[in-house]
Amino acid sequence: MIPDDPLNAFCRHNHVALKGAVSGPLRGLSFAAKDVFDVAGQRTGNGHPVWLETHPPANKTASAIEWLLAAGANMVGKTHTDEMAYSLNGENVHYGTPVNPKALGRIPGGSSSGSAAAVSGGLVDFALGTDCGGSVRLPASYCGIFGLRTTHGLVPTDGIVELAASFDTVGWFARSADMMRRVGEILIPAAIRFVPRRLLIAEDAFAFVGQEVANAVAPAVKKVASAFGNQHPATVYTDDPAAWAQMFRVLQGDEIRRRHGGWIDAHNPTFGPGIAERFRWTRTIDQDEVERMRSRREGVSRHMQALLGDDAVLCLPTAPGIAPRLATPASELDVFRGRAFALLCIAGLSRLPQISLPLATLEGCPLGLSLIGPHGSDRGLLDWVAANFA
Amino acid sequence: MIPDDPLNAFCRHNHVALKGAVSGPLRGLSFAAKDVFDVAGQRTGNGHPVWLETHPPANKTASAIEWLLAAGANMVGKTHTDEMAYSLNGENVHYGTPVNPKALGRIPGGSSSGSAAAVSGGLVDFALGTDCGGSVRLPASYCGIFGLRTTHGLVPTDGIVELAASFDTVGWFARSADMMRRVGEILIPAAIRFVPRRLLIAEDAFAFVGQEVANAVAPAVKKVASAFGNQHPATVYTDDPAAWAQMFRVLQGDEIRRRHGGWIDAHNPTFGPGIAERFRWTRTIDQDEVERMRSRREGVSRHMQALLGDDAVLCLPTAPGIAPRLATPASELDVFRGRAFALLCIAGLSRLPQISLPLATLEGCPLGLSLIGPHGSDRGLLDWVAANFA
Repeated sequence: MIPDDPLNAFCRHNHVALKGAVSGPLRGLSFAAKDVFDVAGQRTGNGHPVWLETHPPANKTASAIEWLLAAGANMVGKTHTDEMAYSLNGENVHYGTPVNPKALGRIPGGSSSGSAAAVSGGLVDFALGTDCGGSVRLPASYCGIFGLRTTHGLVPTDGIVELAASFDTVGWFARSADMMRRVGEILIPAAIRFVPRRLLIAEDAFAFVGQEVANAVAPAVKKVASAFGNQHPATVYTDDPAAWAQMFRVLQGDEIRRRHGGWIDAHNPTFGPGIAERFRWTRTIDQDEVERMRSRREGVSRHMQALLGDDAVLCLPTAPGIAPRLATPASELDVFRGRAFALLCIAGLSRLPQISLPLATLEGCPLGLSLIGPHGSDRGLLDWVAANFA
Repeated sequence: MIPDDPLNAFCRHNHVALKGAVSGPLRGLSFAAKDVFDVAGQRTGNGHPVWLETHPPANKTASAIEWLLAAGANMVGKTHTDEMAYSLNGENVHYGTPVNPKALGRIPGGSSSGSAAAVSGGLVDFALGTDCGGSVRLPASYCGIFGLRTTHGLVPTDGIVELAASFDTVGWFARSADMMRRVGEILIPAAIRFVPRRLLIAEDAFAFVGQEVANAVAPAVKKVASAFGNQHPATVYTDDPAAWAQMFRVLQGDEIRRRHGGWIDAHNPTFGPGIAERFRWTRTIDQDEVERMRSRREGVSRHMQALLGDDAVLCLPTAPGIAPRLATPASELDVFRGRAFALLCIAGLSRLPQISLPLATLEGCPLGLSLIGPHGSDRGLLDWVAANFA
């Protein structure tokens, strides 16, 4: 049975619950999974009723879910996502908008909207999401919880609906840093030891979000810096931040068209505002531009590798602001989306892990502060955060 | 101009040379790249004349080549590969077989055949290859040189002809461990520090190759163990080694069909013995089996992560034997290929880096010994090898 769900976080139309192993390090904990994760014998909804109708039950359960069950956690339900996970807002025209319990009247963020809402509102101990363009990090910031985007390729994505494979990652949410760490020990059973030693402050990213947001997160930056014992100014963007965001949009959009264009042609599903336009736009992407940007992406990746080395962590705002209000026009949300991508694309383009920490507020609403670490540093990041923000 | 090429290592039909930067850590060194790497304005051959004819010049140079040029190395040519890189032998029906300079009368191994031959014969300082199923590691073993398969996703694969994306990696060859390390510093500019502390001996993998090969590599194992100062017996296979090999073959074959099936249908190219049959076989792969094996692959990956932890290296034979003789019948080579996959699939399935060291011989022919490290440990592996096998 789905737990009491005053937040519209869970998929009542596609309920799935699974009992975990009787023993294990996560024994008795409850979790939810975004409805893009497969469970054997059940259909995956991917945020759209036509997707649910046109896909057979899955053959296998996603490894991420299997591992959590084997560690003793119980899955209590699937959670809402934006349509086809192709949005950062969390408003689903078919299933409604999960409630943001830390910022009533505002969107929860997406596309892992239901997972973020369920964790933020205390309905589960932790929840799985996916982060292609920011779908864990942004709702974590809006809902005032921890959220991790993992190193690309580190946690298996089998049994998860692909969106843009070169960006897709598994992530999770929790209310405490320690819970984040405990989940990491299951989903990343071993990793090279990473001990963060240098804290880099992304000065241009803070400048990009403007004085109001920068001021709101300043005390949180100070806390992180004091836990580190050092801080160094750093420049992230080698180009206009908007150019990085555009690089991300184009590369992601091209992969999405290749993956989902055929299904959309075949079934002509109805999409809510913003999303229909976005899918149409993917068909206009110029292939020469894609080629150029693929190569520029690797320049970004190399630049970020050089910046972080093997011992640094980069501190930056997770989002350009607090969650927008419910019923903000799609066109306005799209402007906000472009600004958010300038921040979110840094880890996305360079395949790096990023954790958003719920350390700030503005106008009484949550605002996340983020740490980006080197490739594969996920466990070290989680350990550091758990040790310093218990 | 192509250097003197008594080994038939270089693509005379598709010559490309590029001058490196005037300064940089690799200044003046020469390298070659397998003809699956793009160079802007030039066509990529992918080991087949019909591929070369039916593809336009590339828009961009592969990042791996660009980075090496920027570091001062000069590219002196493109090298032969097996047709579409879908073989481990190195015999190309269209362009001939590169000479194995360390085992005359025997195949060089493939698919990075020309790169291995060019390095082994001293024609270049190092060479780029790709390793999907063993295409760097196996020719390194056969040709008596060092060869690295990198952590999946760590070195960008943009501008490289895709074969099976979830397995494709960049790799390189050199005659010395120090040269391997120097190339690694360019292609992996920063990485979490990995210091190998525990040496695991893959007892079941040594049993799998049989007494003759195990005896031939035993002194090399002893050398590695003494450099480590410790060694621990380990069991790799959670199942019949042949079942792991089959898992690899099916998953790789399915991705190859998806990537190249359409082009083959459209152009009906002629393939040499073994390769034509292999492409036909990919069309018979059962999709339910693919689904089951995708999930089992993640079980292998998790098992390997648990085995290695954050500080261990696994020692195993690179190949089940020395290079087979030239003109061995395709059916016999296919049996050998199946046996080789049982060893090569360990790193492939679990996306881990593996370096083959030229430390043994049998019947006067080279035989490699391999080390597999944790995810992202590539730089640490290269440093350790360079420090101990200078």
